[in-house]
Amino acid sequence: MLPYRPPVEDTMFLLKDVFKIHEDWARWSKFNEVDLDLAQAILEQGGKFAAEVMGPVSQTADQEGAKWHDNEVYAPSGYKEAFDGVVAGGWLSLNGNPEYGGQGLPAVLSIGVEEYFWGANTTLWLYASLTVGAAHCIDVFCDETTKANYLPPMYEGKWTGAMALTEAHAGTDLGLLRTKATPVDDGSYRIKGTKIFITSGEHDLAENIIHLVLAKLPDAPVGSKGISLFFVPKFLVNDDGTLGARNSFFSASIEEKMGIHGSATSTIVYDDAIGYLVGAPHHGLAGMFVMMNAARLSVGIQGLGAAERAYQMASDYVKERRQGKAVQRPPDSDTEADPIIEHPDVRRLMLIQRAFTEGGRAFALFVAHQIDRSRFAEAPEDQVQATKFVELLTPIAKAFLTDRAMDSTIHAQQCFGGHGYIRETGIEQLVRDTRITQIYEGTNGVQAWDLVRRKVLLNGGEYVAEFAEYMRTNNTEGPYKEVVEGYINEWLDCTKLIMERSSNTLEFAAGNAADYLELSGLVIYAWLWNQMSGANDEHLNKKYTAEFYFDRVLPKIPSLFAAIQNGTDSIQTPESAWF
Amino acid sequence: MLPYRPPVEDTMFLLKDVFKIHEDWARWSKFNEVDLDLAQAILEQGGKFAAEVMGPVSQTADQEGAKWHDNEVYAPSGYKEAFDGVVAGGWLSLNGNPEYGGQGLPAVLSIGVEEYFWGANTTLWLYASLTVGAAHCIDVFCDETTKANYLPPMYEGKWTGAMALTEAHAGTDLGLLRTKATPVDDGSYRIKGTKIFITSGEHDLAENIIHLVLAKLPDAPVGSKGISLFFVPKFLVNDDGTLGARNSFFSASIEEKMGIHGSATSTIVYDDAIGYLVGAPHHGLAGMFVMMNAARLSVGIQGLGAAERAYQMASDYVKERRQGKAVQRPPDSDTEADPIIEHPDVRRLMLIQRAFTEGGRAFALFVAHQIDRSRFAEAPEDQVQATKFVELLTPIAKAFLTDRAMDSTIHAQQCFGGHGYIRETGIEQLVRDTRITQIYEGTNGVQAWDLVRRKVLLNGGEYVAEFAEYMRTNNTEGPYKEVVEGYINEWLDCTKLIMERSSNTLEFAAGNAADYLELSGLVIYAWLWNQMSGANDEHLNKKYTAEFYFDRVLPKIPSLFAAIQNGTDSIQTPESAWF
Repeated sequence: MLPYRPPVEDTMFLLKDVFKIHEDWARWSKFNEVDLDLAQAILEQGGKFAAEVMGPVSQTADQEGAKWHDNEVYAPSGYKEAFDGVVAGGWLSLNGNPEYGGQGLPAVLSIGVEEYFWGANTTLWLYASLTVGAAHCIDVFCDETTKANYLPPMYEGKWTGAMALTEAHAGTDLGLLRTKATPVDDGSYRIKGTKIFITSGEHDLAENIIHLVLAKLPDAPVGSKGISLFFVPKFLVNDDGTLGARNSFFSASIEEKMGIHGSATSTIVYDDAIGYLVGAPHHGLAGMFVMMNAARLSVGIQGLGAAERAYQMASDYVKERRQGKAVQRPPDSDTEADPIIEHPDVRRLMLIQRAFTEGGRAFALFVAHQIDRSRFAEAPEDQVQATKFVELLTPIAKAFLTDRAMDSTIHAQQCFGGHGYIRETGIEQLVRDTRITQIYEGTNGVQAWDLVRRKVLLNGGEYVAEFAEYMRTNNTEGPYKEVVEGYINEWLDCTKLIMERSSNTLEFAAGNAADYLELSGLVIYAWLWNQMSGANDEHLNKKYTAEFYFDRVLPKIPSLFAAIQNGTDSIQTPESAWF
Repeated sequence: MLPYRPPVEDTMFLLKDVFKIHEDWARWSKFNEVDLDLAQAILEQGGKFAAEVMGPVSQTADQEGAKWHDNEVYAPSGYKEAFDGVVAGGWLSLNGNPEYGGQGLPAVLSIGVEEYFWGANTTLWLYASLTVGAAHCIDVFCDETTKANYLPPMYEGKWTGAMALTEAHAGTDLGLLRTKATPVDDGSYRIKGTKIFITSGEHDLAENIIHLVLAKLPDAPVGSKGISLFFVPKFLVNDDGTLGARNSFFSASIEEKMGIHGSATSTIVYDDAIGYLVGAPHHGLAGMFVMMNAARLSVGIQGLGAAERAYQMASDYVKERRQGKAVQRPPDSDTEADPIIEHPDVRRLMLIQRAFTEGGRAFALFVAHQIDRSRFAEAPEDQVQATKFVELLTPIAKAFLTDRAMDSTIHAQQCFGGHGYIRETGIEQLVRDTRITQIYEGTNGVQAWDLVRRKVLLNGGEYVAEFAEYMRTNNTEGPYKEVVEGYINEWLDCTKLIMERSSNTLEFAAGNAADYLELSGLVIYAWLWNQMSGANDEHLNKKYTAEFYFDRVLPKIPSLFAAIQNGTDSIQTPESAWF
């Protein structure tokens, strides 16, 4: 596998030239000390760590896989050393609460650098990434003692986090879960049940692992309103923060999977494990969503990181590999065959990747900045608005980033021809690894339904209207300004249609959700590409990709709208047994 | 993995009710004895063999993989026994020349049944499938003695075939190949060189393996006009047809791949191996294309078979798995959660699969029947026309069937949620196995270029015009008759545009080739879905899928045309170093 090259220049271009994020930082008291120099230093350091420490053990880990033996789980060779580097570099504390050892930096920076970690080594970062959300959940819901004991080692990375939601019969539908929590006299609970697909639920890289577990109390109402959230440490934590006895849960097995072989996905058996309630009884989903929403954006960026890496590999290959003579040969061409980048169809594959990978980076950083804005903007109304935007955009970020990432890695693999199908070149690993991003943390179908149901219908389209207005107001001058206006209007029309057709039944909305999400993503990227194309850009030549995106990709918008307008009768008519 | 269910009823519906192929058989002297009863018997027998013998060893073979040791290659456990069944059933002789032991049946039947073999066990059939093309190549180009010695054991399946084209530096561009063929006094040649990615080039399932090898003679002109074709048996064949000494080539290694683990993909070293010229010197590509065109259609059907199997697995799963309450609950619903087929977005995923899988089966059988028509139709002008159609449609069949198959297997996997990503359910294997179909036998980009360059521009659009007229004439009454007319016109307009813009430079054609191929496929499937929807159909209810296809899929056609109209400036402008 070729060395990973962190796209620091592109990230900086977005922060500085496109979004001018430093101007917000200067205004917001929380980030007064953060500036572009600091941002660049962090991105460069993170990128260097990703390239030099994480990247080199990615392919070997895929081949070796995580191992299970007698309920103990072992990460692949080299992961312990690399993970120690995550700890030493403080890479889990960037965004953490400074009162407990966090660095209190903007989310836009931790997310910016996280893309490099995902890109360099997806499965190594899977051992770390859920720690951030778990710590955030503890920070928001738990008492001082818990925070003081748990947050510092989690920020440090000596302890890691895991989310334990899924059971064999309860995936999307958490209301069906059966894991029980029984209160005991000391205020703790005994957790009993079996969870499956638990990423990093057990491994040998950290001193302790903090599970956030969904379970039902004895008096729980039926369904999703009866779910409570608990934190369940692998080793119990004494009052002074030292580690005590091992808690009674274990990994019963790890999964054989299509990809992310380096990551250990456990079945975890909780055998009256000691747990502690997070938030209010029966309101566990609210707590879990604090963690889950961060995880959803992170999964989007996981896809983005892999797609960027796949592009880099394809980029090297298509300039090196010579096959056939191009229809328009380069002026100095005197060889038997041209590099395949001279072939228009290969260029097309490369441009599709760039349109969605660079567009995706812009989108991810925009959402991340809105997370910061929702927490730290000076004006309360800005915080309110940004909160709406984050809610609206999170399902789009998760699903659209990962769907396009899957396409991108496949296009990159295609550029390699037969050499892309064999393991040696490493590109096929990226395809297999990326596939999970469309599935976990809520399938992309679930994201589409979250978007349409909760983020559009439940607020009567207010979030969409407000974000459309925001895009209009911030639509920079440039060749695509008016075209973008048109697409924004098409998005509003489509939103209106879905609302109108949802007064009696939700079938129209549900059947159209996925196409609506895709249409939304395409429109938002149109706005971002116009911004990028209009920004000061010394030599990145964003205008090339923008032109491709507007000419060749965006004609898809009217086709999606037409399909939506054609309705969902054809989806709902067949009896279920017919399928 | 669930048992495979051969879709015999659907194949028969297409032969009988949609294409009325038996009426042609009755008219053509070659197939006077073939009728629908015989067709059904063959399809049922083949389907039974696929389901009962081939299917059960598919998943174990994926896990075990083919093995290499000391230049010998071993197929996975159970493959020898299953392959003996291929031999015993005569499944390689269906389409063969009756003078040498072939059954002389229509291609539409051998291809119909081949779908089941691909669907039940892709990698087992990979040991067999190239034998058909290799035998056909020998039948067309070789002398009586060779045919008498080679064809009977190949039809029987005791000997298998392999195509040896690719070298490390020469994939798409065969003109670059370096393997040498030196003539010797007895009229044979000595072949020296190394070929890579040779499917079934070495294995332990057959007594002999006949390689068709591309190499260059000492006096070869430069480039693809200097390539000759040779057949090179693993064991030399005595004049009486018995096996002689082992020839001097061997497998230096087999590849580790993304999928098709059960298939052995060898690097083959020819160390002055004895070979025999096929066809005229320096005209090897013509011979190879006899084999390659059959292989291209076969690869399309490989994708189709896998997509059908993936659909079947998803179909069982979505009716069994219960998660969440549907927005429109079934009338008798009194459980906590509905089967996920009740969710509109899951239905959408299932309908996309059906639209392209059943559409793909119709297309594949149509092309296969045109192959028969090109050889055996009574009227010479019918043969001429059918030959044009086969040439025009082969690249579309290869690329469009496999691109849609890849989408379909991914959609089927998505229906499984997290359970689709683990190996146990078997669906992820179908995704990995299908991915190769977009790459080998000419990448789908190469197919698109073949379509635009050779099948459109080189005949001034004549094939397209003639096929469009054929579709129009055979456009059955039905709700979509006029809509189909409109799409056919859009296809003609698009073809005309590409021709007009190709008078000076081929850049427009090359940059638009892939989108043009997709547009062509969508239009042809529209025609086929109208035919299927209008045909006598007792309970298949093709009208459901037709409605979905017209409402929800076909709006993509104008978007592709719009992208093509926007031109390829954005593809060609960036300098190559920018990528």
